Amino acid sequence: MAKDKKFVQNITSRDVDFAQWYTDVVKEAKLCDYSSVKGCLIYEPNGYAIWEMVQKNLDARFKETGVQNVYLPVFIPESLLQKEADHVEGFAPEVATVTRGGFEDLEENLCVRPTSEVLFCDHWQKTIKSYRDLPKLYNQWCSVVRWEKTTRPFLRSREFLWQEGHTIHATAKEAEERTQMMLNIYYDFVTKDLAIPLICGRKTDSEKFAGAEATYTIEAMMHDGKALQSGTSHFFGDGFAEAFGIKFLNKDNELECVNQTSWGLSTRIIGAIIMVHGDDSGLVLPPRIAPIQARVIPIAQHKEGVLDRAYELLNKLQASGIRADIDVAEKTPGWKFCEQEMLGIPVRIEIGPKDIEAGQVVVARRDNFEKIVVDIDKLEVELPKILDDVQENMYDKAKDFMDSHIDTAVTMDEMIKKFNVQRGFIKAMWCGSEECEEAIKHETGGAGSRCIPFDEEHLSDTCIYCGKTAKHMVYWGKSY
Amino acid sequence: MAKDKKFVQNITSRDVDFAQWYTDVVKEAKLCDYSSVKGCLIYEPNGYAIWEMVQKNLDARFKETGVQNVYLPVFIPESLLQKEADHVEGFAPEVATVTRGGFEDLEENLCVRPTSEVLFCDHWQKTIKSYRDLPKLYNQWCSVVRWEKTTRPFLRSREFLWQEGHTIHATAKEAEERTQMMLNIYYDFVTKDLAIPLICGRKTDSEKFAGAEATYTIEAMMHDGKALQSGTSHFFGDGFAEAFGIKFLNKDNELECVNQTSWGLSTRIIGAIIMVHGDDSGLVLPPRIAPIQARVIPIAQHKEGVLDRAYELLNKLQASGIRADIDVAEKTPGWKFCEQEMLGIPVRIEIGPKDIEAGQVVVARRDNFEKIVVDIDKLEVELPKILDDVQENMYDKAKDFMDSHIDTAVTMDEMIKKFNVQRGFIKAMWCGSEECEEAIKHETGGAGSRCIPFDEEHLSDTCIYCGKTAKHMVYWGKSY
Repeated sequence: MAKDKKFVQNITSRDVDFAQWYTDVVKEAKLCDYSSVKGCLIYEPNGYAIWEMVQKNLDARFKETGVQNVYLPVFIPESLLQKEADHVEGFAPEVATVTRGGFEDLEENLCVRPTSEVLFCDHWQKTIKSYRDLPKLYNQWCSVVRWEKTTRPFLRSREFLWQEGHTIHATAKEAEERTQMMLNIYYDFVTKDLAIPLICGRKTDSEKFAGAEATYTIEAMMHDGKALQSGTSHFFGDGFAEAFGIKFLNKDNELECVNQTSWGLSTRIIGAIIMVHGDDSGLVLPPRIAPIQARVIPIAQHKEGVLDRAYELLNKLQASGIRADIDVAEKTPGWKFCEQEMLGIPVRIEIGPKDIEAGQVVVARRDNFEKIVVDIDKLEVELPKILDDVQENMYDKAKDFMDSHIDTAVTMDEMIKKFNVQRGFIKAMWCGSEECEEAIKHETGGAGSRCIPFDEEHLSDTCIYCGKTAKHMVYWGKSY
Repeated sequence: MAKDKKFVQNITSRDVDFAQWYTDVVKEAKLCDYSSVKGCLIYEPNGYAIWEMVQKNLDARFKETGVQNVYLPVFIPESLLQKEADHVEGFAPEVATVTRGGFEDLEENLCVRPTSEVLFCDHWQKTIKSYRDLPKLYNQWCSVVRWEKTTRPFLRSREFLWQEGHTIHATAKEAEERTQMMLNIYYDFVTKDLAIPLICGRKTDSEKFAGAEATYTIEAMMHDGKALQSGTSHFFGDGFAEAFGIKFLNKDNELECVNQTSWGLSTRIIGAIIMVHGDDSGLVLPPRIAPIQARVIPIAQHKEGVLDRAYELLNKLQASGIRADIDVAEKTPGWKFCEQEMLGIPVRIEIGPKDIEAGQVVVARRDNFEKIVVDIDKLEVELPKILDDVQENMYDKAKDFMDSHIDTAVTMDEMIKKFNVQRGFIKAMWCGSEECEEAIKHETGGAGSRCIPFDEEHLSDTCIYCGKTAKHMVYWGKSY
C-alpha cells in the first residue's frame, strides 16, 4: 500500500535544516501556534496534552516528597521585586509592567511575575514565626512572563508555562538536601518518563540564577548537538531571607533566618522531547508521556465486522489502562499511518479483514518502524511489554547519541577543531575565572559552560584556556 | 475528654455575624490569605487542594464530552478587545493594562485577560476553513484579572482562578445544545460532588454576559439566604463570528459564520462550599471533593501498639482508595479533633488502647457529629458507605434549607414583607422590562433577578411590579 506523503512532504529533513525541521514538526503535529500577541504562543490540544502528562507525572513525584501546591498572585509590586539586589538586576530588563487598572493609573506599578521568589518571601515574612512552622514546601503551576526579543515554539517566548517550587528550612543543610532532592526528581522524571538522557551538575557563577548561592541543572543534548537546560534547582542560603527579614524562633528561642530553595521546569521540556526523539516522519513520543499511546487503525473499515472488532479491541485496551484511541475517518489507511507517525503516537494497531480471519493484529512501532504480528487475544498482555520496549529503546538510542557526541579536549586548538568536526559537548578543565569562561565561549563560536558535573574527571592539571591550575572539569557546548 | 477550644474560640458564630464567620473560617482553615498585592489573594495549600479536586472532577466530565484543553496568552492587544462592541463595553472598565515591556513603552498596550473570547476568536478566524474543522471544543484552566474595588476571599478579587470553555459549531442548534450540555455538567458536578442544591435557568437580558445572546446560570443559596452565581454557560450565536470574520465553507461550499459558546466556573465555588455547608465549628467538606476524606487520630498514642495499629489502619484505608491521613502531632486529642473539624475533614477515626482491645474504632462524622463504632476489620468496607451517607445527608440538609427559604409573592407588598421576615429567594411574575427589574431590586433593598427557571410556574397573570401582562416567572434574591 502506497503511503500518502501529505504530512512528510510538509516537513524539511532533520539533517538538511534542523531549525526548519523543528518548526515544521511543531506545526504539522499541531502542538502550538503563534498568536496575535507578539512573542506569545497558543498551546494547541496536542501540545497542551503533553504538558498535562508532564504535570501529572511530575506533580505526583513532588507530592510524594511532601510538597504542597499553592497559587500566588500574577502581579508583583515594583518595590517588592527590588528588595534583593542580584535578583532585580537579573530580572528587571525583561519584566512586563502594568501601569493602569480600569481607567486609572496605578499608584504603584505592578510587574507581571517573571518568577515568584519575592512573593513567597513576602508571604513567609508575614507568616513564619517559629521552627514549628518549618519547613514549608510549596509549588505552583502557572505561567510567567519574560520580555524576550525572539520567539521559538516551546523554547523561547514572552509567556511560558512552568512549575516553580519554593521551600524554606530551618537549616542550610536541610535546604541543600532539598535542592539536590528536587534535581534528582527532575533527573528521574526526564530520564525515565521522557527517555531523555542527561548530564547534570552545578552551574558556574556566571550562569547561576539571579540571587542564588548555587544553581544545579539537568542538561539534555538535542539531535543537533546543542544543549537544552531542562530543569534547574537553586540553593539560596539565607540571602533572600536577610533581604526580606524571614526570621523564626529556633528551639533555643533565638531569632534566625530561614534557608531557601527554588526549582523549576517549563514547557521548554516539550522542545526537548521533539528535538531528542523526533525524526523525518515527525514527532516521536515516549510511551510514558504520550497522551495517546496506541492508535487503532482499521483497514478496509467498510467491510463487515471490521469496525466492530476494531472498537472491541479499543475498549479492551482502554479497560486495561492503555491510553488508546481509534481513527475511523474517511481517509486511506496510508494517510492515517502518516498522521499517526507525525503525531508521534508510539504504536499503531492495524486491523483488517485478513487480520481478523487470522486472529491477529499488526502492531507498528513508531520508534523503529518495526511491525509485530500479535495474537488478537493476547494484545492487552503484549502491548504493555511492547510499549516498555519502545520506551527503553528510545532512551538507549538517545543515550548512544549523547555518549558518542561527548568528547574531551586539553588544548584550545583541540577543542576548536573538535567542535568544528562534530556537534555535541566537550569536557575540558577550567581555572574557575569568568574571563576564561567567556573567552572559551567566544573562541569556540558559542560553546558556553553547561555545568560542572558531580563526577568530575581529571583530564589535565591546567585550565584549557589560561594554563593556570585547573579547578574544575566543565561540560562545554552550544545551547538553546 | 474536654475539647480544646482554641479554634472555635477564634471564629464568630455563623448566626451572629455571617460575614465575619466566613472570614474567620477562611483564615482558621488556612484556605487563603491576603497578599501584598492589593486585591489579589494567596491560595494556601488547604484552599488550593480543594481547587485541585474541583479541577480533577470537572475536567474529567469535560473530556468525556470531547472537550480538549489548550492554553492561550495572558495578554490581549487593546485593539482585539475592542472588536465586539458589547463585549468591550462590559469589560473595559475592569481591565489591567500593560504599557511597558522591559525598559520600553509598548507600541500597543496589552490587556491582562479578563476573559478570553476575543483571543479564541482571533485564533479561529485564522485557522478555521471548512465544516470539516468544526466543531472546536476547547477549554483552559487559568487565572483572569478584573480590576475590582473590593476583595472578599474566593468571592471577589482582582485575580481569580477559573476554567473558561470556548466552542464553535457549524449550526446555531448545535451551539445551543452545547450551551445546555455544559450547564448540565455544572449542575451535575455541583449537586453530586459538592452536595450543593441549585436552581438554574436563563439570565435576564440585563444580567447576561457582555456579548452573549443568552446566558444560563446555576445559582446556589448560601446559609444567609443570598444567592451565589456558581457557573454560567453562554450562547453567542454568530455575534462574535461576525465581528471577527470566523467563516467556514459549509457542505454546499458556501461561506457561513460559526456559532459560538463559552462557559466558566471559578474559585468562587469554594466560597459556595464554605457558605452552604460550614457551621460554627468551621468548614464542612463534602466527601467527594474533600482532599482528605478521613483523618486517623490515635488516642494515647504513646501507649505501646497504638501508633502501629493507627498506621496499619491508615495504610489499609489508603490502599482501598480512601484519601486518608493521620495526625501524630504532640498535641491533645481534643486539639486534634477541633482542628479536624475546623478543616472540614468529613470523618475522623479515633483509635486508642481500649478500641484496639475491643477490636473497634470510633468514626466521628463532621456533618452531624454522630459517633459510630465500627469493627476495626470492617472499616475499609464500612467507611465508603459512611462517606456516601455523609455526602447524601449534606445535600439533603442543604436542599431542605434552600426549599424552606424559597417563597412566592404576587404583590410588591407581599414580596417586601416576606424579604423582611425571611432570607432567601422569592418567586414572582415579571413583564420582561428592565425598568421593573431595577425597581424591584431597589424596593426590596437589593433582591435582583437570579434567573428565569426552565420550569416556570404560573403564579399570576401580571408583573408583580407594573401589573402589565407577565412574561416570565423569575427567582429574585440578594446575591454575592
